[in-house]
Amino acid sequence: MTLEYFPLPGTPVEQLDTPALIIDLDVAEGNISKLQTWANRHKVAVRPHAKTHKSPYWARKQLAAGAIGICCAKVSEAEVLANAGVPEIMITNQIIGERKITRLMSLARSARMIVAVDSPENVRDLSEAAQACGAEIGVIIEVDTGMHRCGTAPGAPSVKLAKAIAKAPGLRFDGVMGYEGHLVANRDYEVRKTETLKAVEKLVETADAMRKAGLDVKIVSAAGTGTYNITGTVKGVTELQPGSYIFMDGDYLQVLKDFKPALHVLAQVTSRPAPDRAITDAGLKSISTDRGFPAAAGITGATVKSLSEEHGNITVEGEAAKLRPGDKIRFLPMHGDTTINLHTHYFGIRNGKLEAVIPIEGRGKIR
Amino acid sequence: MTLEYFPLPGTPVEQLDTPALIIDLDVAEGNISKLQTWANRHKVAVRPHAKTHKSPYWARKQLAAGAIGICCAKVSEAEVLANAGVPEIMITNQIIGERKITRLMSLARSARMIVAVDSPENVRDLSEAAQACGAEIGVIIEVDTGMHRCGTAPGAPSVKLAKAIAKAPGLRFDGVMGYEGHLVANRDYEVRKTETLKAVEKLVETADAMRKAGLDVKIVSAAGTGTYNITGTVKGVTELQPGSYIFMDGDYLQVLKDFKPALHVLAQVTSRPAPDRAITDAGLKSISTDRGFPAAAGITGATVKSLSEEHGNITVEGEAAKLRPGDKIRFLPMHGDTTINLHTHYFGIRNGKLEAVIPIEGRGKIR
Repeated sequence: MTLEYFPLPGTPVEQLDTPALIIDLDVAEGNISKLQTWANRHKVAVRPHAKTHKSPYWARKQLAAGAIGICCAKVSEAEVLANAGVPEIMITNQIIGERKITRLMSLARSARMIVAVDSPENVRDLSEAAQACGAEIGVIIEVDTGMHRCGTAPGAPSVKLAKAIAKAPGLRFDGVMGYEGHLVANRDYEVRKTETLKAVEKLVETADAMRKAGLDVKIVSAAGTGTYNITGTVKGVTELQPGSYIFMDGDYLQVLKDFKPALHVLAQVTSRPAPDRAITDAGLKSISTDRGFPAAAGITGATVKSLSEEHGNITVEGEAAKLRPGDKIRFLPMHGDTTINLHTHYFGIRNGKLEAVIPIEGRGKIR
Repeated sequence: MTLEYFPLPGTPVEQLDTPALIIDLDVAEGNISKLQTWANRHKVAVRPHAKTHKSPYWARKQLAAGAIGICCAKVSEAEVLANAGVPEIMITNQIIGERKITRLMSLARSARMIVAVDSPENVRDLSEAAQACGAEIGVIIEVDTGMHRCGTAPGAPSVKLAKAIAKAPGLRFDGVMGYEGHLVANRDYEVRKTETLKAVEKLVETADAMRKAGLDVKIVSAAGTGTYNITGTVKGVTELQPGSYIFMDGDYLQVLKDFKPALHVLAQVTSRPAPDRAITDAGLKSISTDRGFPAAAGITGATVKSLSEEHGNITVEGEAAKLRPGDKIRFLPMHGDTTINLHTHYFGIRNGKLEAVIPIEGRGKIR
C-alpha cells in the first residue's frame, strides 16, 4: 500500500529515510552483556522485561546471554513472544476478564506461563479457566512494596493469598514479585539505595513468611533498571526484571551510567525558516515526551524548543546553525519504552551502517 | 499471530475487550456535518486534516459531507489516502529528500497532489523530480502568519517564491496556506479572534500581493478547529483545514463547545488494592499525555492520579469507589491525534453497540 521500502544492509545511517528509530547494536549488546555478567557474579537470575523492546529479536538476544525467561505486560505481548519461541513468559500484571484469561490458558500450550495476581477473585477465575482448559499456569503474587499501584500488602495478606493459590486446581504457586517503581528513577543513589533496600526487604520477609507457612517460594522477583545493582544484592531475591537497561533513555541516564544509550530517533531538517530555528520531521508521533523533550545528540548548539505532532522546533546556534534542509540529526528520547511503541521497526546500526531491520511485533499490543 | 479477534457488530460496548479506542458514530458524524454546514453557509470550502483520524473511512465521510479534498502531514499518510481513492490530497508540510519527493511524484498518478513549500531549494528539487517523472503537482507556499514554525515571511519573500514556482516546469502554483497554530487553543475567544484576524490578514494580503504580481492564487488555506469560525469569515480565505473537530478532545473542549467529544478510550479496572485507588489497564501506551492526563467520563468520583506505561492509577470516591475489577470506565484523552496514533482500530459505537471496526491505516505513517 505504501511505497516505503526497507533499505538494504550496508546502507550508511545518514542515508536512512526519516524519522527512523535507530539502535547502536554494539551498545545494546554491550548493555545486555553487562547486566547479565553482573547478575551472574551476584548469583541472581535475570528475567528482562519485554515491555521496553516489544520484540522477539531482542528477547532472543537476552535469552542467549543467559536470561532465564522474559517478562511482559499484556497477554497480546505474550502471544507475540510465545509465537516467536520464547519458552517461559511472565506477565507481570493482573489478567482480568474471561477473554484474556482464556487466551492466557491457550498460551500455556506453547510456553511456560507465569502471571501476577493480587486478589482472591482473580485466583478463582484463573483456576476455573485452567481447569476448563486443562492447562496449568504458574502464579506469583504482586506485593506492594511501596509503589502503591497494584499489589497485596506485604506479610499476612500476601501469605493468605498464597495459600489460596497453592490450593487452587490448575494453578502452580511460584512465588512473589514486587516492583519498586517509585524508586527506580530517584536521582540520588544513596536515597535510592536506602529506600530500595527497605522496599525489597518487605518482599523478602513476605516470602519468608510464606515459607514458614509451608509454602514453596521459588521466585522472588523485583528491580528495575535503576535499582538492579541494589535489589540484586539482597539475599532472598532470586531474579531481576529490568527492561530499559537494554537501550537506556535520557531519563535513566540521569539516574545511572552503568549502561550506555543505544537508541535514538534519526530525523532530518525540513525547513530553516530563521537563523536560530531549524524544523525537523520528528514530532510527538515519533518521539514520546511523557518524561520530557528529547535531547539532540552528536551535535552542539541544538536544543528542542517544542514538538508538535510531526515537527520538531529546534533552536540552533554555533555548529547546529549550519544545518540545512535534508541534513540528519539524532535525538535521544527521554522515555525509550513509549517512544519505541510509536514505531514499527528498529534500524540496527553497526559501524555506521545498517545491519538489520528489526520488527517491533509487540507494538500496539495493548490488550 | 495473536488470539485477539474483532467483536461482531451488535456487541454491547461494555463487552468490548480493553483498552479500546471507541468512537460515538452519531457524535462524529454530527461534528462533520456541523462544520460542513457552517462552511457552506459562509461560502468557504473545507479540506479536513487527516493527521487526526489517519483513516480513509473518515476521509470518505468528510468528502461525502462536502469536503473538497483531504489534508495530511506525511507522504506515507498520503499513500494510504490515495490508495483508498481520495482524489485530491494536500500535504501541508515540506517534503524533503529524493526518496520522499519521488514517492510524491508517483502519487500524482493516482491522486491530484498538492504540497507545501517554503524555500527555493525545495521548489527546484520538486521541479526536477516532476520533470524526471513526467508528473505535475500543485504547490502552495506555507506562509508564517505568526506561529514561527515553518513558512516564508508574509509579503515580498512569499511573492518572490511564488514567482519561482510559477516558472518551475512540472509545478503548478496553487496558492498559499498559513496555520495559526499558536492561536487555535487560546482559551479566550476575544483574544483568539483578535489575534487570528491579524494573523490571517497577513495571509490574505500576501495572496493579494501575489495577484498584483500577476499570479493566479486559487487556494488561500488556513484554520484549525479552534479558529474555524474566525478564519472562515475572513474575506479572501478560500478553505479551512481543521482536523480535531471530527472527534474533539479534552484540550479542545476547553477552547470551544461547537463540537462534541466522540472519542474515548475504554479501559477496565484490573485491581482495587485500596479503598481510594483503582488501577486500570490503559496507560501511556493507550492514551497520550502530551496535553495532560485524560479525564474519566460517565462516572463521578474518578480522577486520574498518574499513568504508567500500561496502568492508570485512578483516585476514586463516591460512585467510582464501587468499581470492581472487570468494570469498564471511559477516559477522554486530552489530545486525540496522538492518542489515535497509538491504536490500530477504532471501535465505532451507535446506540451503545458496536457498528464497525475501523482500521487506522495511517497509524505510524511517519515517513
